[in-house]
Amino acid sequence: MTTFSEPSKDKAVLEGDGDFTPRFDANGLVTAVVTDIRDGELLMVAHMNEEALALTVETGIAHYYSRSRAALWKKGESSGNLQTVHELRTDCDQDVVWLKVSMAGHDAACHTGRRSCFYRTVRKVDDRILLEIDGSTRHFDPEDVYSGKAEK
Amino acid sequence: MTTFSEPSKDKAVLEGDGDFTPRFDANGLVTAVVTDIRDGELLMVAHMNEEALALTVETGIAHYYSRSRAALWKKGESSGNLQTVHELRTDCDQDVVWLKVSMAGHDAACHTGRRSCFYRTVRKVDDRILLEIDGSTRHFDPEDVYSGKAEK
Repeated sequence: MTTFSEPSKDKAVLEGDGDFTPRFDANGLVTAVVTDIRDGELLMVAHMNEEALALTVETGIAHYYSRSRAALWKKGESSGNLQTVHELRTDCDQDVVWLKVSMAGHDAACHTGRRSCFYRTVRKVDDRILLEIDGSTRHFDPEDVYSGKAEK
Repeated sequence: MTTFSEPSKDKAVLEGDGDFTPRFDANGLVTAVVTDIRDGELLMVAHMNEEALALTVETGIAHYYSRSRAALWKKGESSGNLQTVHELRTDCDQDVVWLKVSMAGHDAACHTGRRSCFYRTVRKVDDRILLEIDGSTRHFDPEDVYSGKAEK
């Protein structure tokens, strides 16, 4: 399996071109932002450990690390909603990766059955901060798809 | 200042509409994904503590928490690149927020002077995983803008 080199302490090296040296946090994770290659919609945010990141680069299929299950998570293994990675980017200090993906299956990234996990807007109404569901429909019924198999 | 209620342990409540109850992590932070309202480009990923999130909701100007400086960070205070928040969203389990912003100043979110922090693609070339700068130009010279004032 691919392993990654230690990040440089030299900021100019970290911010330049050359080897990809992801900066895993104290839990061994980087943040992964996932958008749809079709229209740029933000689908989900997840985490990757070194194994998940290496598998993603090597196979072109998104792999994450599930913090709740403390296990490698091949997204879509239960639901069929696999993500093919068309482009992978990293940010200036290399602790976040950005995946531009296309989705198979139900065209839904969220375990609630919706296309995107970001189906709610935040609004201040008088003294309350409220969430409002934006009308996103469920592309699948989580009860049917995950019965007995917790994906998230 | 606005304070947020404790997140519900009931998943259906956490995933529904009603009060926004952000799930701050062990360090008291949520992840903030920032895209440009104009074209959806991913500009940066940062973190917010409760104060930064409350100030963002109340003022409509993006505030973050700088982990490196361990301090509230009003983005653009040094550089002039303030971010006006046009829409705020959260994800299914409320530990990530998504800001759609417009930028003032140099139209650059990255401390390197570029519009986006994600100016490099990741590519596998033989056995190496390499970063390639995508041609993004610097909208400002960090030396000029941050001399003596570390924004990031």
